[in-house]
Amino acid sequence: METLRAIFTRRSIRAYTDEPIDPQILHQLLEVAQAASSGGNVQPWGFVVVQSPKRLAALRALSPGIIGTPAAVICLCLDQERAIAFGGDEGEQIAWLSLGLVTQNVLLAAHALGLGACPVASFHKGGVSLFLGLPECVSPVLMITVGHPAVRPPSPGRRHLSDIVFAEHWGHPYE
Amino acid sequence: METLRAIFTRRSIRAYTDEPIDPQILHQLLEVAQAASSGGNVQPWGFVVVQSPKRLAALRALSPGIIGTPAAVICLCLDQERAIAFGGDEGEQIAWLSLGLVTQNVLLAAHALGLGACPVASFHKGGVSLFLGLPECVSPVLMITVGHPAVRPPSPGRRHLSDIVFAEHWGHPYE
Repeated sequence: METLRAIFTRRSIRAYTDEPIDPQILHQLLEVAQAASSGGNVQPWGFVVVQSPKRLAALRALSPGIIGTPAAVICLCLDQERAIAFGGDEGEQIAWLSLGLVTQNVLLAAHALGLGACPVASFHKGGVSLFLGLPECVSPVLMITVGHPAVRPPSPGRRHLSDIVFAEHWGHPYE
Repeated sequence: METLRAIFTRRSIRAYTDEPIDPQILHQLLEVAQAASSGGNVQPWGFVVVQSPKRLAALRALSPGIIGTPAAVICLCLDQERAIAFGGDEGEQIAWLSLGLVTQNVLLAAHALGLGACPVASFHKGGVSLFLGLPECVSPVLMITVGHPAVRPPSPGRRHLSDIVFAEHWGHPYE
């Protein structure tokens, strides 16, 4: 799928069919994840893939934000040691930004490959850390649910471009 | 350009030719920016486009991270009121993540459209806020430099997938 088409037609998919994900396609999603940039190329991240039905059910119990029944959840985690090594006090914020780059790569690639995905930020951080067995310097930042789309919702819409894009100074019309 | 190809072949472009950016293409980059998801679809962002040569020179003086001479800089700003309205105390972190989604859309679209772009996090926040005339509740988060690529650097490489991807539990081999 062409890049701009993927960007404009991507939707957050929350309802999935029972169909499993081809392991090769899931592998591609992990490769696109780490193709994202990070400050100083420190790659302050780790990804835990949950696919076992029992563990998916437990993860859903810890995560109010997971609504449907995805075939897999990719848990994006932040490695604080690496983040701080690059950015000092601001390293963690910059790492959140980098994890956003990772996320968008996965969301777009999933859509381009015929899957659906949704970023989920609402989960019990302490519970998920224990559940995934994260080391002390690692914390869960975002989950990406993935599966074959059952329902493709319409776009929730966006603000007018003229309300958010400015030329040279905030508040000056762009066009 | 096909989506996965765009993801894998994108590079951070820091050296640009003098060629200006077609206004329609720049407009497309702003449309893809706002096509990103945000928690609760609050879109806690605003974008200031700097293109005037004088102002670009001043912006570079405030931003050690801008190395080459881009034709335009898109300054991504976070609207704290909107961020907090959605996510409470955690709203600002989630907004950083959302701005990462915005960024990756712009980076990929620029590449797909034959331009080059680079995310820049190193700049004087207070100085840039004044320079852009940002309201009190808005802060600059990231700049994206954009232009026609003069030099296309090789990939800086990535960690081994086996060091960052785990199955079910952190530390358990994925494959």
